[in-house]
Amino acid sequence: MKLSRYMVPTLKEVPSDAVVTSHRLMIRAGLIRKESAGMYAYLPLGFRVLRKIMDIVREEMDRAGALEFLMPEMTSADLWKESGRWDTMGPEMFRIKDRNGQEYALAPTHEEAMTNVVRQIVASYRDLPVTVYQMNTKFRDEIRPRFGVIRSKEFIMKDAYSFDMNEKGLEESYQAMRKAYRRIFERCGLETIPVEADTGSMGGSNSEEFMVASEVGEEYLLLCGCGYRANQEKAEYRRTGRQGNEPQADIKKVPTPDVKTIDDLVAFFKCGADKFLKSIIYLADGKPVMAVVTGDREINELKLKRALGATDLELAPDTVVMDVTKAPVGFAGPVSDIKIPVVYDLSVADVVNGITGANEKDMHFTGVNSGRDFTVKNEADITSAVEGDMCPKCGAAMSVKKGIEVGHIFKLGYKYTKSMNVTVLDEKGKTVTPIMGCYGIGVNRTMAAIVEQHYDERGIMWPRSVAPFDVHMVGLGKSPEEIARVEEIYDLLVEGGIDVLYDDRQASPGFKFADADLIGIPVRVTVGKTYFSGGEIEVKSRGGSEILKSAKENLVKLVRETMK
Amino acid sequence: MKLSRYMVPTLKEVPSDAVVTSHRLMIRAGLIRKESAGMYAYLPLGFRVLRKIMDIVREEMDRAGALEFLMPEMTSADLWKESGRWDTMGPEMFRIKDRNGQEYALAPTHEEAMTNVVRQIVASYRDLPVTVYQMNTKFRDEIRPRFGVIRSKEFIMKDAYSFDMNEKGLEESYQAMRKAYRRIFERCGLETIPVEADTGSMGGSNSEEFMVASEVGEEYLLLCGCGYRANQEKAEYRRTGRQGNEPQADIKKVPTPDVKTIDDLVAFFKCGADKFLKSIIYLADGKPVMAVVTGDREINELKLKRALGATDLELAPDTVVMDVTKAPVGFAGPVSDIKIPVVYDLSVADVVNGITGANEKDMHFTGVNSGRDFTVKNEADITSAVEGDMCPKCGAAMSVKKGIEVGHIFKLGYKYTKSMNVTVLDEKGKTVTPIMGCYGIGVNRTMAAIVEQHYDERGIMWPRSVAPFDVHMVGLGKSPEEIARVEEIYDLLVEGGIDVLYDDRQASPGFKFADADLIGIPVRVTVGKTYFSGGEIEVKSRGGSEILKSAKENLVKLVRETMK
Repeated sequence: MKLSRYMVPTLKEVPSDAVVTSHRLMIRAGLIRKESAGMYAYLPLGFRVLRKIMDIVREEMDRAGALEFLMPEMTSADLWKESGRWDTMGPEMFRIKDRNGQEYALAPTHEEAMTNVVRQIVASYRDLPVTVYQMNTKFRDEIRPRFGVIRSKEFIMKDAYSFDMNEKGLEESYQAMRKAYRRIFERCGLETIPVEADTGSMGGSNSEEFMVASEVGEEYLLLCGCGYRANQEKAEYRRTGRQGNEPQADIKKVPTPDVKTIDDLVAFFKCGADKFLKSIIYLADGKPVMAVVTGDREINELKLKRALGATDLELAPDTVVMDVTKAPVGFAGPVSDIKIPVVYDLSVADVVNGITGANEKDMHFTGVNSGRDFTVKNEADITSAVEGDMCPKCGAAMSVKKGIEVGHIFKLGYKYTKSMNVTVLDEKGKTVTPIMGCYGIGVNRTMAAIVEQHYDERGIMWPRSVAPFDVHMVGLGKSPEEIARVEEIYDLLVEGGIDVLYDDRQASPGFKFADADLIGIPVRVTVGKTYFSGGEIEVKSRGGSEILKSAKENLVKLVRETMK
Repeated sequence: MKLSRYMVPTLKEVPSDAVVTSHRLMIRAGLIRKESAGMYAYLPLGFRVLRKIMDIVREEMDRAGALEFLMPEMTSADLWKESGRWDTMGPEMFRIKDRNGQEYALAPTHEEAMTNVVRQIVASYRDLPVTVYQMNTKFRDEIRPRFGVIRSKEFIMKDAYSFDMNEKGLEESYQAMRKAYRRIFERCGLETIPVEADTGSMGGSNSEEFMVASEVGEEYLLLCGCGYRANQEKAEYRRTGRQGNEPQADIKKVPTPDVKTIDDLVAFFKCGADKFLKSIIYLADGKPVMAVVTGDREINELKLKRALGATDLELAPDTVVMDVTKAPVGFAGPVSDIKIPVVYDLSVADVVNGITGANEKDMHFTGVNSGRDFTVKNEADITSAVEGDMCPKCGAAMSVKKGIEVGHIFKLGYKYTKSMNVTVLDEKGKTVTPIMGCYGIGVNRTMAAIVEQHYDERGIMWPRSVAPFDVHMVGLGKSPEEIARVEEIYDLLVEGGIDVLYDDRQASPGFKFADADLIGIPVRVTVGKTYFSGGEIEVKSRGGSEILKSAKENLVKLVRETMK
């Protein structure tokens, strides 16, 4: 392919809204262009990489025995209503009506649609297990799309769904996908970290995310040397137990004028933040609840939501806090007579002589102790693990990394097969509800993640498997005769079965080399002055610094070796 | 691939909403399933055919030098507003807002989006010509989706757009696409008829549709032995000239109580329908106009719209007719003093002693003659050609066929490059507006059209190029030993590089043969009793009736021959 005909608008300048490396490089190397916020067009070079990734995904899904479907992107509201998710999917799901008034979702995921088609086909245990998949466009109404194609409103997802007769079968299907995912990311040249994850709106009982460690990741991963890996939404940590041996003091009400935040309190009482019983009022599905954690911890709202079994969770407005505690925000606590449900983090009962709001303006209690001054009825893990926390498995200190999620596998359980009445007959003619798994890969963000892991200060360094071309040939001919000699080499490589992007533009060597480095094709072949004056052709790998020399006759062989 | 694992839910019954052959067979052969009105899921066998078609399209587009992009399906309203089509696209275009209030179209076509990305990249004559394309999902809010995937709300389209420096360049790009389209349809085993077409909302000056003749087609094609081919929206026809030698009679007002329709008039006046000057009031962009045609002809609203240069055209409500003609509907005519614009069909001036409404209740004029009783100021071709009309090129009688449109190529002209300010510099540094072409293929309906052209009473008969598999192998083994011998043949074929769908189900030979005929893979291989008892393997082509016999050793060779 001749570069002059291939629409590769490389840029020297960094686009102002591109704050992460992959976004910057994908724009600068002419792979993508922004259409509007969170919407990107793939140019020929970028689409070529995307297709290579999709081909790898397809090969590995097929190898694992999954069957490829293609589902409508506009999915009927009826299906979402049947599963109950029409009401729970929230504002991230685009909804639309046709002119006959029929409602649809622009599908962010296809559990309902796939379950609907599969239930029309499977009838007996003979038809299971089955794993179906598709690669298709998904939509998400991101409130703040960012990081280029990493978080966009429209993206390609490979989504797969397994249907098994029982949990043992599901475990096998899940492991087959797990294996396929490892192969896919490995073949894409991506190092991924599989971590335990929350199951979110999917429902279900077991889930793992494939994360790419990256400074621009939006998720925090807790990692332990023993192998424990979980994202922060889900990560547990071992608690330190009862605070010291100090005897219980008497509870006392203390005036604390304008002392409201944990920082204020630490300064005022001159003690550690872990002595405070931070008490926050939320609305869970519209009803007020109080969450109590130690002052050194952040509330993990996903864990809290799960502990409450709530669909919606939001901070209560000041008026509700006033109403519940009879005091302005900043003075809530579990000691006085609180009429709303209270959830205590696992560490709260271990606080000795704690300090908490007195549900009275400018007043706190000190010497507060669980069991005597308040009763922990509903205890749960509702705080986030942080760097240095003890691993829940082995007790060692965990570390934290940021990561981009590129894949996610779930054991969904019976959520959809039950709500959507999927049944098959077992060997004995008895009706059985199949159990499901669900497996997703974000194709576009996989591409971005590859860039995040493969670049240097000059540009992208594609792994060979997903590189848009095998060879970037820089032609430095000027006279018609020189150009003819360059084209001869181009033909030679193409005939040798090598995929070549040939820079045939009239530009300086420096300009062309810079573009070659920016675009990041694994091998660069330069046909220039040395060759025109009877010398050799230069071969260089994008990663290395050594420039190899080759006669025309050995070029294909040398290029092939360099490609490895 | 083993059929038992491949989710091919063949059906004996014809689904009640499937009224055309391709729809019936695609459902019955387990290729697609309906999700909701106008929305279909492709099952593995159907998706395989779809992909083969897409591969052929891609190969031919690439061969023609077109560059593959991937555009967002949700396109920003800003782009549609820039071209002016946000207001003119009508209710077929799905529109949606995101939660920040930004408006989008679910793109039914991508002129604006592609023009927008191309204008960011091309700067000089050196960057042109260029043809860009994508294969992507499109949406259309069909008021009455029908015929399975032929007219659905969501479909895959290959859409391409060419940008050239001048009309000569456009002609070359257009011809390159024309050639590619012929190859594509030919490779898909489709006989297409290229016909002249109207350019519709695309705007532009030259256009051709690739039609597949079919009883279920929704378009009418006018065909002449001389090579003239046009769809009815566009087809011209040669007029017969002045009606006879009859001398002009005097104009007379005649009472015609309750005589309103052309049939009423023919019965009342006992003359041919071509004597009547049918006068219909429309609203063109909201303003009343009168269209006058001879009573034997239908008004072609697309032609009328074009003649008026109108964006919207609809029949005027009765109140407007009353207001304009001072008479109820049925008595309009061009003779009296009419204050609105009148468009006359080309044949009206040739009517001798015509009859027309007198713009007065229950009254008509007879003896009406152009030039004397009314003046033809604005004359245009505003009627549809029908079977037997004279070819505009050679004058021979034309025939009519119904057809399905599978492809469409247009010369768009400057509509988008002008409205969206695309410019490049020419050789002299002068600013030039490029000229565009636009080229579409409906991928899903191409699949349906292939079925419409390739079936018999037993099922589909796929052309080899798009068949989901090369061979449908029917295994009739019962004992484990027989089954092992069948699988040995399966392995033999697969190792021979043949793509095999192997019916490994426990079912009767008749059931399996019926499914093989229904699914329509080109070659059937039967491994049954004859082979188990020391005889041969049977090879049959889907189209033929002859059953060939083969020893195991010669099977791959014989299958390869039969595939041709």
